[in-house]
Amino acid sequence: MRILIVGAGGVGSAAVRIAVRRDFFEKLVVADYDPARPQALVDEVADPRVEAAQVDASRADAVAGLIEAHGITHVLNAVDPRFVMPIFDGALAAGATYLDMAMSLSTPHPEQPHALPGVKLGDEQFAKDGQWKDAGRLALVGIGVEPGLSDVFARYAEDHLFSEIDELGVRDGANLVVAGYDFAPSFSIWTTIEECLNPPVIYEKDRGWYTTEPFSEPEVFDFPGGIGPVECVNVEHEEVLLMPRWTKAKRVTFKYGLGDEFIGVLKTLHKLGLDSTAKVNVKGVEVSPRDVVAACLPDPATIGDKMNGKTCAGVWVTGTGIDGQPRSTYLYHVADNDETMREYGSQAVVWQTAINPVIALELLATGVWTGTGVLGPEAFDAKPFLDLLAAPAPTGYGSPWGMEDRAV
Amino acid sequence: MRILIVGAGGVGSAAVRIAVRRDFFEKLVVADYDPARPQALVDEVADPRVEAAQVDASRADAVAGLIEAHGITHVLNAVDPRFVMPIFDGALAAGATYLDMAMSLSTPHPEQPHALPGVKLGDEQFAKDGQWKDAGRLALVGIGVEPGLSDVFARYAEDHLFSEIDELGVRDGANLVVAGYDFAPSFSIWTTIEECLNPPVIYEKDRGWYTTEPFSEPEVFDFPGGIGPVECVNVEHEEVLLMPRWTKAKRVTFKYGLGDEFIGVLKTLHKLGLDSTAKVNVKGVEVSPRDVVAACLPDPATIGDKMNGKTCAGVWVTGTGIDGQPRSTYLYHVADNDETMREYGSQAVVWQTAINPVIALELLATGVWTGTGVLGPEAFDAKPFLDLLAAPAPTGYGSPWGMEDRAV
Repeated sequence: MRILIVGAGGVGSAAVRIAVRRDFFEKLVVADYDPARPQALVDEVADPRVEAAQVDASRADAVAGLIEAHGITHVLNAVDPRFVMPIFDGALAAGATYLDMAMSLSTPHPEQPHALPGVKLGDEQFAKDGQWKDAGRLALVGIGVEPGLSDVFARYAEDHLFSEIDELGVRDGANLVVAGYDFAPSFSIWTTIEECLNPPVIYEKDRGWYTTEPFSEPEVFDFPGGIGPVECVNVEHEEVLLMPRWTKAKRVTFKYGLGDEFIGVLKTLHKLGLDSTAKVNVKGVEVSPRDVVAACLPDPATIGDKMNGKTCAGVWVTGTGIDGQPRSTYLYHVADNDETMREYGSQAVVWQTAINPVIALELLATGVWTGTGVLGPEAFDAKPFLDLLAAPAPTGYGSPWGMEDRAV
Repeated sequence: MRILIVGAGGVGSAAVRIAVRRDFFEKLVVADYDPARPQALVDEVADPRVEAAQVDASRADAVAGLIEAHGITHVLNAVDPRFVMPIFDGALAAGATYLDMAMSLSTPHPEQPHALPGVKLGDEQFAKDGQWKDAGRLALVGIGVEPGLSDVFARYAEDHLFSEIDELGVRDGANLVVAGYDFAPSFSIWTTIEECLNPPVIYEKDRGWYTTEPFSEPEVFDFPGGIGPVECVNVEHEEVLLMPRWTKAKRVTFKYGLGDEFIGVLKTLHKLGLDSTAKVNVKGVEVSPRDVVAACLPDPATIGDKMNGKTCAGVWVTGTGIDGQPRSTYLYHVADNDETMREYGSQAVVWQTAINPVIALELLATGVWTGTGVLGPEAFDAKPFLDLLAAPAPTGYGSPWGMEDRAV
């Protein structure tokens, strides 16, 4: 297996740091628009299999050229979702397997954005499913943590725990704090605003996909691992588009544990127009208010060593157990920032995202996972993935997942 | 009486519109840095006594020169508090009586800003009391609505209603809303942030003046005139510095009815550093975050005709009544935006500020009020002021005030 990772940011770097501990690949090229970033990573990991390259991820032909030049068999897209389509198309054109951790972007419904979906997350990719099948190639989409591990959990619950699923409710929460700041998000405020302003999408078997107002259906979810109760709200997320395609769940939701403080901040920014990307004139200078908000906060990429706490990703499954009794189970994975910083030099949120595509690559390398067309993580057997994730090194990745039955 | 009003903004314009209905003066010069603004006002009121002029309010000599050129006897300062000292000094130098509606600015205590006062509001002005006395001239400071009418109420309560005052609690609240906006403050957000970030000041007889954290001692105060309950918090304000000098109150406070929504917005802006006036670099451009916040909101000066509701200023006095019984009374004045817009073309908040110095000028013109040195409104007999305010035109200003006894 000869891998190309496009993007040497937080997630791409963590993926490299995780992969170099494994022996399932011969070559790993890390490419970025700025060639200094992958070079620094190559110097850091000092693994002769790893090489740096430069690429313009917005050009499918540049991606295809790089794939061909290095004899790449598998491409992992680790850049901003705006670049999904050129990398996806470049991989298809050059005959490589493609993996990403987000999906092609959505566009709100022009008339009823808070009731009906417009162009949905991943629609552009699924539209090309036939081309990938015809080429006998696989595009494995949404194989980060959320989407990704959450989708693997959903498939596991369907295959091994439930005879009937009422709801697959992805629930993401954390208790990360950043020392020395009144308010310091552990992820990009720009992206969080974007995610939270997009109309949240929900799936129901009888109704199909539909959208709601932002911050809908607030709920306090009790997270394991010492995180505790966090206020969660509906947010647009890939799982809601993926899970209904390969599971029989009657309802699929994604709720993000932003916490009431963060939700309050986002609502206030929206109320004041400070979430806007349209430039305003400020005493003769043109700026986008959202950029100003980001500039006033610490850069999340640089605060990993000041961060403390855990982040939890998982799926809350409700329905009927295989024993025919009502069942409510949360399947989850917790990452502790102290541990990921110490072990990998990556903060918890990006590390937890990056470990999953590396495991998927290993399962593809060993032939445990195979397939053609555009497929989500639910399309594959979940058990070998979860076993490999949890098994101690050197067999596995040594990162256990958990399962918690809740009162029904 | 020959009056100079410095500043043709909202309050200065309203003062001119109110004054031209009265006959106690011979000449009224309105001056502004931008000569087009007073000229527009002169054209609007079409009163031969009113004249426009240009002035740089930051220069005491320019103010003195203008006073001399027009034979001015009384100067009303209607600009930003940053210009208090040059106008105050210019009036003294030129031998005119001086009136303002705010006082010289404060500077927080360098070590314990939320416990001890530093340079207090008005300190710079009171330091020159001797010079004004020696010149036989009067500087009547803080004669807007708050400070101003609130101080007149305090003096009235002491002279006519109470034998002993436990607390003079200024309480300011409104139910003004602006049609068509999610969030549109009826006053400058820049100034409101400034006021609310300054450490609130409190006076207690045994302790003197001291300061607290911002937003301290939240309290829901029930305002009359249909406004109802509004969340109020301590804010630094001139009354707390004025009232203890001329009354025997044991405690003096100022609480601003910002409402819980507005308080939440201000706290969020502070948490995110968006209240800062220090410039930040936003993609190569330097801007002050507070200016960006102001630029995102509608300009309060332009929304008077979209505003609706009432604003209430007053003093809640508690103590022992003249009958020796415990007493709790709110003395107040309500301005209705529909009415002030229709009658005067000025929005309620600026109109309510502007009417009081005009009444004071009339009482000085008729000799009912006299004095020398730097004096607050409490230094004068309150009754003729309140009578003139309430009496129907043409005798008075036709704007009744109210009094409400509360449970003790």
